[in-house]
Amino acid sequence: MSLQSVHSIAELRDTLSSMRRAGATIGLVPTMGALHAGHSRLIEQARQESGYVVVSIFVNPIQFDQKDDYTRYPRTLSTDLEFCQARSVDVVFAPAVEEIYPHPQRTFVEVTGVTEHLCGQFRPGHFRGVATVVLKLFNVVQPDRAYFGEKDAQQLAVIRHMVRELNLPVTIVEVATVREADGLAVSSRNQRLSPEQRRVATGLFQALQVAEKRIASGASSPDEIKLEALAILQQESQLRVEYLEIVDPDEMQPVDRIAGPVRVAAAVWIGSTRLIDNLLCKPV
Amino acid sequence: MSLQSVHSIAELRDTLSSMRRAGATIGLVPTMGALHAGHSRLIEQARQESGYVVVSIFVNPIQFDQKDDYTRYPRTLSTDLEFCQARSVDVVFAPAVEEIYPHPQRTFVEVTGVTEHLCGQFRPGHFRGVATVVLKLFNVVQPDRAYFGEKDAQQLAVIRHMVRELNLPVTIVEVATVREADGLAVSSRNQRLSPEQRRVATGLFQALQVAEKRIASGASSPDEIKLEALAILQQESQLRVEYLEIVDPDEMQPVDRIAGPVRVAAAVWIGSTRLIDNLLCKPV
Repeated sequence: MSLQSVHSIAELRDTLSSMRRAGATIGLVPTMGALHAGHSRLIEQARQESGYVVVSIFVNPIQFDQKDDYTRYPRTLSTDLEFCQARSVDVVFAPAVEEIYPHPQRTFVEVTGVTEHLCGQFRPGHFRGVATVVLKLFNVVQPDRAYFGEKDAQQLAVIRHMVRELNLPVTIVEVATVREADGLAVSSRNQRLSPEQRRVATGLFQALQVAEKRIASGASSPDEIKLEALAILQQESQLRVEYLEIVDPDEMQPVDRIAGPVRVAAAVWIGSTRLIDNLLCKPV
Repeated sequence: MSLQSVHSIAELRDTLSSMRRAGATIGLVPTMGALHAGHSRLIEQARQESGYVVVSIFVNPIQFDQKDDYTRYPRTLSTDLEFCQARSVDVVFAPAVEEIYPHPQRTFVEVTGVTEHLCGQFRPGHFRGVATVVLKLFNVVQPDRAYFGEKDAQQLAVIRHMVRELNLPVTIVEVATVREADGLAVSSRNQRLSPEQRRVATGLFQALQVAEKRIASGASSPDEIKLEALAILQQESQLRVEYLEIVDPDEMQPVDRIAGPVRVAAAVWIGSTRLIDNLLCKPV
């Protein structure tokens, strides 16, 4: 069966309601396009678990805190469609901005608490924009399952809280981060790095691994672990740390002491490129 | 068929999914209980249009800006159940607070703009609480249609914006305000009025009618019309005006000039009882 590409909500709803009536379960992979190996893993898992797989491709203006970042975001629809076709996606939903926001958007979903630290602190309004568009996509697609990457751990926490606290009838599936051979998490932003910046970027994963090892060997002081991880990052003068935090994996609040699983999360800048990564770390 | 009374979300979802599979359309009447003639009209209309009618009864703590108002709110479940039974409701969903809020609620729906004036200005957080619980109820019930009274016009505007801007697959049905013989809008709060206060309360509808007549006869200055309507309210020393505004019926923002349909809305206090009412008014 060949890939269907749909731009209107009404057409998508028509297609999906006939699939639903035929008894198919629906899997949604929400993306902003510029598809890469990380998305591939999301699609593969959706393909395994769902009768009908929808990939949405929408660069969501209301989640960008910087207009420049929004306009510069890569838009590669034709290669994305080939990418989806090769992975047996059933339908790509690629709406225009006016299809998703035909009126001034006055309604927003706020997930408080979970969004206070990490990226939420440095990108005001970002998670409000993410939660709002994801809820809109859920209401349009009404998927049985929706797939998100662990790399965006705070986004995942926001969506899990939203689903639970708004009683949304959808199962959130978390898919492990895909990494390059040297450990760098796959991201569309990696393409912007020069060869030298690309070498420097490996420091991010190395720093997280240092924290992971210390936690696994029984260290319980977040401050001490952070110092050690930061020391790795500070070896590279081209790398600027935005944050490195050790947080509770559900509430995403910094912990005082490590007594159970925690997430070590960091954001760094290399030149004008911002990279994030995280690891779920467990004490012995 | 006798009325079913359900307290758990899981049980309600089971019941509804079998009704849905059987092809029934579902109508939801969300209430806080203390059912009266206004609710009766909502239920009647739902009964006419839907195969299966759900009335929810839930005094929603997060929409009360004053704790005292929340604890004093009437709770009359057994008479409400008889009321619903007499009107051929299929199921009453009457959850405990812990069923709706089992976790700390961190996720909220904010409808900006529409909530700035009128009640929104005087009851901080009220519409955030309303929008959030209504969205939760929509996600639990997944109704085809949901019924709301015109008396709570700003609430209706908030819900209409939410539905439109979050792409919710539900039709909102507006039902006209039910009034006593002397015009007072039916409300559970009317029971709190003494006979003398009850007499004074009729001034609210009279003031709105004065505005309606002036608008129908071509008056276009909101300030002049408000002065005339306020003069009626000020005849009663026991009646304290919280607001009287002339607003755009969709955005609920005060208008500078009347050139199309507007909503005249007011809130007054009589003793410790707050009453609201409104009229949709059209120029010639």
